[in-house]
Amino acid sequence: MDTNDYLLKQSAKIEENIYSNVPEQPEWIYGMLREYISRGGKRIRPILTLASAEAFGGSEEDALPYALSIEIFHNFTLIHDDIEDNSPVRRGKPTLHEQFGIPVAINSGDALYTVVWSTLLNADVSPDQFHGAMKLMVKSFSDVVNGQGTELEWYRTGKVDVSEEDYFRMAKGKTGSLIGVSCRMGAYSARAPPEAQAAMQKFGEKIGLSFQIRDDVLNLTADPSNYKKEIGEDIKEGKRSLITLNLLSKLQGPSKAYIAELLRKPEKTEEEVQEVISLAKEHGAIDYAGAVSDKLVEEAKEALNVIEDEQKREILLSLADYMVRREK
Amino acid sequence: MDTNDYLLKQSAKIEENIYSNVPEQPEWIYGMLREYISRGGKRIRPILTLASAEAFGGSEEDALPYALSIEIFHNFTLIHDDIEDNSPVRRGKPTLHEQFGIPVAINSGDALYTVVWSTLLNADVSPDQFHGAMKLMVKSFSDVVNGQGTELEWYRTGKVDVSEEDYFRMAKGKTGSLIGVSCRMGAYSARAPPEAQAAMQKFGEKIGLSFQIRDDVLNLTADPSNYKKEIGEDIKEGKRSLITLNLLSKLQGPSKAYIAELLRKPEKTEEEVQEVISLAKEHGAIDYAGAVSDKLVEEAKEALNVIEDEQKREILLSLADYMVRREK
Repeated sequence: MDTNDYLLKQSAKIEENIYSNVPEQPEWIYGMLREYISRGGKRIRPILTLASAEAFGGSEEDALPYALSIEIFHNFTLIHDDIEDNSPVRRGKPTLHEQFGIPVAINSGDALYTVVWSTLLNADVSPDQFHGAMKLMVKSFSDVVNGQGTELEWYRTGKVDVSEEDYFRMAKGKTGSLIGVSCRMGAYSARAPPEAQAAMQKFGEKIGLSFQIRDDVLNLTADPSNYKKEIGEDIKEGKRSLITLNLLSKLQGPSKAYIAELLRKPEKTEEEVQEVISLAKEHGAIDYAGAVSDKLVEEAKEALNVIEDEQKREILLSLADYMVRREK
Repeated sequence: MDTNDYLLKQSAKIEENIYSNVPEQPEWIYGMLREYISRGGKRIRPILTLASAEAFGGSEEDALPYALSIEIFHNFTLIHDDIEDNSPVRRGKPTLHEQFGIPVAINSGDALYTVVWSTLLNADVSPDQFHGAMKLMVKSFSDVVNGQGTELEWYRTGKVDVSEEDYFRMAKGKTGSLIGVSCRMGAYSARAPPEAQAAMQKFGEKIGLSFQIRDDVLNLTADPSNYKKEIGEDIKEGKRSLITLNLLSKLQGPSKAYIAELLRKPEKTEEEVQEVISLAKEHGAIDYAGAVSDKLVEEAKEALNVIEDEQKREILLSLADYMVRREK
């Protein structure tokens, strides 16, 4: 099956099952949350959970509660992240805090985080399976929040000269960990052996990280006529990426201080943004990030050797390519 | 033992055990959370959990993980509520969003909500006990968030003429439910029969509700020389309480519209606040709320008849009096 057809078929399954886990009342909390969830997104995390379950002979039915819980957690993080990052738009519509104000958006996010657990509790999961799942999921959610908190701390304190080690720790937490646990929970629901589960987690983490770095590369190099965001937006927002830290590591003295100061500035002119992009190209920082992203995909794919069924492995390989080989 | 001595002894136990559940790293997230938790408060919820466990022959050791999780959840709600209510001070110190900005405070709250579950997971609780506990706790946390969301919706939409039924639903959720589950989890950890657990939950809910209403009464009637907050602050902030809704229900036509408009106004003069307080006294709204609070304590105490051990029951009775018979 074509990857796009597969994604459509699987995201329809998520769509079909996710709303019954969101309470009806009070309408002024859960009405907006249902609308928010219905905005879609690629549903890549729950689709990975289902595919990972099937890769080990598990059923989609058994994997579904984990898939849905993780997608709900992801939506919760978007609500709070958008407040924290001051983002006005999410999936083509106003963010919840734009629509209802920050107090309501914080509280509705908290409500949705609570729904993560009621979703799992409402499912037909044994206490033993539930307990083991909680351990894995809570660890991952903690990583996500810690990653986001680290990035916020860099913004708050104006730290731009981040080490590669610190960057990877942050990005693994913020982005890699949830995609990692998405894959792991599929294998877990199929009762795959612990080593297989660990391999699937590694696959997801590396794909997630690769995806994030590719995203940052595209933000500076995409074809503007075909790109959904503004080229250079990340530089404008002072985002700490593998590209900016690699560039800074290659600069010295006044030029390093100048670029660091520029990245830190709350407002930047178009010329300043272009200056950073040109320098990043000139010093090979964008190529470097692209190469790291490519290497991570290869490592991720290697982890999939744990799957014996070649056809099921192919599905996950194509999902990996789909995530990383985007041009927009 | 004197109630104050008992409270000191028990809160020392909470103090002794709570920090080991909060991660060390990253320091910029968990450092502030440890400091926040160390600001104290009465620790009444976890103390009720321990006392409820002992009332059914359970050990404090078994009850402690639930007690700590609930206290951590309570602290999490304070962090987010203070952002939502725009409060600058918590327990004599700046609120986290005052100190670190709203983005960091939202994220740190989310981190603490995650610690609620890792606390329970790190404890020596069987998967079966864990699963049953999650059901009760998630239900209660959902009530809390829904109660807070309902109050926020009243503020956002300017709704002041709330029905008594809607008020009780909101207050039961926001305040009653967590105190209810605090008591229930003690009985649960002691493996008390389901009816006994339900009675303890009822005790806690009613005490919590009574406490909240008493708090609202004190805010308008306390001796200013001996009161930690500003007299009439609730009116100034337009808080929807049993007092304001009872007053509004007793007014008609233009005077009702006038008071509703006044309560809705973001800024109020000292005279306007005094006008509402005088009217509330005149129409018996404060006395009414006081009587409801008293009735709730009596009903709460009756629920304690489920405890056979008279001495243990006495402890809970004295905790109920301690919570409700405050003058400040």
